[in-house]
Amino acid sequence: MNEAEFGQGAAGLIEFDVYLSSGVHIGTRQKTGAMAPFIFRARPDGLYVLDIRKTDERIAVAGKFLARFNKSKIVVAAARQYGQRPAQRFCEVTGAIPMIGRFIPGTFTNAHYKGYMEPEVLVIADPIADEQPLREAAQVGIPVVGLCDTDNETADVDLVIPTNNKGRKALALVFWLLARQVLRERGELLPDQPFGVQVEEFETKAGGE
Amino acid sequence: MNEAEFGQGAAGLIEFDVYLSSGVHIGTRQKTGAMAPFIFRARPDGLYVLDIRKTDERIAVAGKFLARFNKSKIVVAAARQYGQRPAQRFCEVTGAIPMIGRFIPGTFTNAHYKGYMEPEVLVIADPIADEQPLREAAQVGIPVVGLCDTDNETADVDLVIPTNNKGRKALALVFWLLARQVLRERGELLPDQPFGVQVEEFETKAGGE
Repeated sequence: MNEAEFGQGAAGLIEFDVYLSSGVHIGTRQKTGAMAPFIFRARPDGLYVLDIRKTDERIAVAGKFLARFNKSKIVVAAARQYGQRPAQRFCEVTGAIPMIGRFIPGTFTNAHYKGYMEPEVLVIADPIADEQPLREAAQVGIPVVGLCDTDNETADVDLVIPTNNKGRKALALVFWLLARQVLRERGELLPDQPFGVQVEEFETKAGGE
Repeated sequence: MNEAEFGQGAAGLIEFDVYLSSGVHIGTRQKTGAMAPFIFRARPDGLYVLDIRKTDERIAVAGKFLARFNKSKIVVAAARQYGQRPAQRFCEVTGAIPMIGRFIPGTFTNAHYKGYMEPEVLVIADPIADEQPLREAAQVGIPVVGLCDTDNETADVDLVIPTNNKGRKALALVFWLLARQVLRERGELLPDQPFGVQVEEFETKAGGE
């Protein structure tokens, strides 16, 4: 695979080879129609590869979007193991509310439940694993930003970030970039100011937390 | 066609039969993978019909999104005839900047052009007819809200509003609902307060303006 294909004309959030070395472009062997526009090509072994220029663009757009919300009204859901630490760190850095691990049904829809909340925007790490918050958000009209892989359906995801949403390093990098971008868009981090948080701190350690 | 199928459980922005009588659900005879999630079914004559529940949800989400921008930083592009008046009226009502008819290349990308502008968000009536502003927005990283029909590609449209984007009445209704929703989300219109602008005022007259 000619990875250099991706890097041409890049002027993105980060050097494109960082996306590649984190496996952000590595999709699955299935593709949905909804994700077709984000797929760069199919490898001979049948794996679909994402177009990281679009990943990069969408992280930038999602950053602009999320920065416009009150931080305490942003909820980030991540049920699967490798998404948990990146989502948690994202929330620590940006002030968003983490909903890590199992999502209690009714959290967005049942005003009698003691953990009930009314977020203004939801971020999910995976439309399949985080199907419950995704469905509840759609029900009550909360906009959703979602990390979507080649095999995801996206009808309920309002703003798709196309990415490998299964790999440890990929999830860490995407949440790290998104956190940095939110801070930049808020003006809390100047364009040339170093982030001060390492991407490794976003990464689930091998063997779990 | 059983139009009643659509209306069940509806609690949207407007009675669902208004969408139907305006033809918002009427797509084209082509479908793209990207638009597949928004397609309700194919009619026996080969016409693809959109799921107006999703149209309704996305207008609500787009309203929330657009309301967060400074009104003078929202640009609305509409090149095709039937989209022009709805887009113009949308701008008059919400304070957004209309770019009606031909879009001069470089408007978003060439700082030396006298009409150069730096919007923070772009709304387009049609990804094909408004391809130039769509491409320039992607180039400079401006989020795009787009009215997309069953035959549109959507990779550069960050927030898709699935709708018939060719019909006079459909375009009028969608822009009218979006304008109302933006005002509601800004708090300029209370939930029960009448809009005071008729949808007919958004409609291109038969035979042009």
